[in-house]
Amino acid sequence: MRKVAVVGIGHGKFGVRSDASLRELAFEAVKACLDDAGIPLKEVDSMVTGIAGDEFALGLQPSAQVHDYIGFHPKPNFRVEGACATGSIALRTGIMNVASGLADVVLVVGVEKMTEVPTSIATEIMGKAGDSIWEYPFGTTFPGYYALIANAHMAEYGTTEEQLAMVSVKNHYYGSLNPYAHMQKKITLEKALTSFTVAYPLKLYDCSLITDGAAAVIIASEERAKVISKKPVWIVGAGLATDTLRLGDRKSLTSILAAREAAKTAYKMAGVGPSDIDVATVHDCFTIAEIVAYEDLGFCEKGEGGKLIAAKETYVGGRIPVNVDGGLKSKGHPIGATGVSMAIEITKQLRGEAGERQVKNPEIGLAHNVGGTGQVVAVHIFRRE
Amino acid sequence: MRKVAVVGIGHGKFGVRSDASLRELAFEAVKACLDDAGIPLKEVDSMVTGIAGDEFALGLQPSAQVHDYIGFHPKPNFRVEGACATGSIALRTGIMNVASGLADVVLVVGVEKMTEVPTSIATEIMGKAGDSIWEYPFGTTFPGYYALIANAHMAEYGTTEEQLAMVSVKNHYYGSLNPYAHMQKKITLEKALTSFTVAYPLKLYDCSLITDGAAAVIIASEERAKVISKKPVWIVGAGLATDTLRLGDRKSLTSILAAREAAKTAYKMAGVGPSDIDVATVHDCFTIAEIVAYEDLGFCEKGEGGKLIAAKETYVGGRIPVNVDGGLKSKGHPIGATGVSMAIEITKQLRGEAGERQVKNPEIGLAHNVGGTGQVVAVHIFRRE
Repeated sequence: MRKVAVVGIGHGKFGVRSDASLRELAFEAVKACLDDAGIPLKEVDSMVTGIAGDEFALGLQPSAQVHDYIGFHPKPNFRVEGACATGSIALRTGIMNVASGLADVVLVVGVEKMTEVPTSIATEIMGKAGDSIWEYPFGTTFPGYYALIANAHMAEYGTTEEQLAMVSVKNHYYGSLNPYAHMQKKITLEKALTSFTVAYPLKLYDCSLITDGAAAVIIASEERAKVISKKPVWIVGAGLATDTLRLGDRKSLTSILAAREAAKTAYKMAGVGPSDIDVATVHDCFTIAEIVAYEDLGFCEKGEGGKLIAAKETYVGGRIPVNVDGGLKSKGHPIGATGVSMAIEITKQLRGEAGERQVKNPEIGLAHNVGGTGQVVAVHIFRRE
Repeated sequence: MRKVAVVGIGHGKFGVRSDASLRELAFEAVKACLDDAGIPLKEVDSMVTGIAGDEFALGLQPSAQVHDYIGFHPKPNFRVEGACATGSIALRTGIMNVASGLADVVLVVGVEKMTEVPTSIATEIMGKAGDSIWEYPFGTTFPGYYALIANAHMAEYGTTEEQLAMVSVKNHYYGSLNPYAHMQKKITLEKALTSFTVAYPLKLYDCSLITDGAAAVIIASEERAKVISKKPVWIVGAGLATDTLRLGDRKSLTSILAAREAAKTAYKMAGVGPSDIDVATVHDCFTIAEIVAYEDLGFCEKGEGGKLIAAKETYVGGRIPVNVDGGLKSKGHPIGATGVSMAIEITKQLRGEAGERQVKNPEIGLAHNVGGTGQVVAVHIFRRE
């Protein structure tokens, strides 16, 4: 397979962006990305756009809103979607685009404009990323899905509400240091534990945010990457896997099969294992999801995720720093943008450009992005030269 | 680039399929496709699903409905979307997947379940494939968009309402011979011309159908294709191009820039020109669209499309047979399935399996699939051994 590297990154401000439409959010990230890569748009051959929801985007082919507004036509662009894994799927599609030889330089944009509908409607739209026939119509939405997972994990492994809250405290701490984060404020364990219950045991501070935002990366073939960037970050592993639509059809609630499978593929392709990962971004749509991710990715043994955060091993300076950009919890989760934002954080870390949040001299990073309740999961592994 | 061939095709019945849900429609096409390829599902490495509308599909990641129901998990699958070009974009993504080396055998499924919402709602959902800020809110839906194109073509080139109707008569004639077509009935020129006006000059019989349906193809690398199929059909050209979101931002209404660009790329990649094409499927969402496609693809000079159909040159036996499967007009247009269905028709023709509709000994075929009003267009060229 042709080698592929990240050669440009651009991150828009995440938050309630009533100042910008979907297309304007995308423009902001693309502009920053081109500036970072130091190339004009005309040097980009092709584009992939990740946007999760037609209803959020107010129409079919929202990708056209993006290519139109940034002036990319007549060059190729289309949309990919896999619920909350949309951004990483866009990255994967970009990788295929370059690796196939159809393009040498590809722009990958992830964007979502979620706050134009009321929170209740947004929750409904997202709820239908579960089974729209056999789950959602019976009243389940995402806090409910992940509450089932959290309760099962607590029952099977003794994971505690305090440990869930500790994930939130960590991610809010790092979010407070990330200028692009939606919520830049530290919280205490007590504040997290006493926030109102959304779906037991998940409280307000266990839940990620409904956010507007965009993120963009430029990826390139080996030949072009070496010309464009002094610090190309190679994408050395790409795994994608799926699972059943319904949670009820799975053998276990405490592990996401698709995450394990995607990780296995990505590790094998990269020729590395969990202990080689120096920094990771994982899909903390709810705090329990980060704990399950630790285990599914092999950062600790099954059932030990709660202890890993309690021992602060996933802080900078710990054994495996995770979500030191604030994660979905504090940085926010504009669905289509999330996976691309993860790739940006890993690239920044491997370039040594993460400022106060910088992990010491990392060489290999990993991004883990879950669609829905694990119906699709993407894992990418990145390596600096 | 690694060579890629179609090695299996499966077409579900198009129509008002109140007997089947989205997932069941997809299953029907996938089953037929595996039977045609003569391989079990376990020999497929990866999958791409083309579905245009969240709102039609009742939720985010409708691709998970499909991989779950056909039992494809934990292998990779995700959704791509580009409005009415969704199916061809799924094919293109499958090609990238194989050509990149990430997979050797890929299942491409296109499906849409459109008739569960009232026609007025379906028309609204589709209308938002135009500009959801600057076009759709002012009342324009697809018949209106294409009526603008038709009026401009009539004014500039003298194209007549009779010529538009002739496209409909041809496509209904071939649809009557296609057991998978939504409407299997011949119509007369008079019937087409006297049907009620939807948006002048477009009448009922100038408009394609709102249809449920699915189509699937299996594509493979050269090595695997030669093992799987005795009659592999090689995909030798793949073009994708885009244009502005708003019709009003374009220099011309009578030609679709993205179609010309996508065709140019595909012809160049295949090393052929318009006169080498023996059979084609083009995007006749409205009769005027087929006439514009003749011109954009170079099957005739600009402005001569009306004369091409009037001379019956696009019938079997004519200079360039077009939409001899009935086209969107008579076969139906289940959005996500349409592009895949086009690839199936071309494969059937090149294999010599099109029965009563068979073009004499074709070697090279082309499929042209337009998203929205041309915001994205895909052109693929196929060649038999």
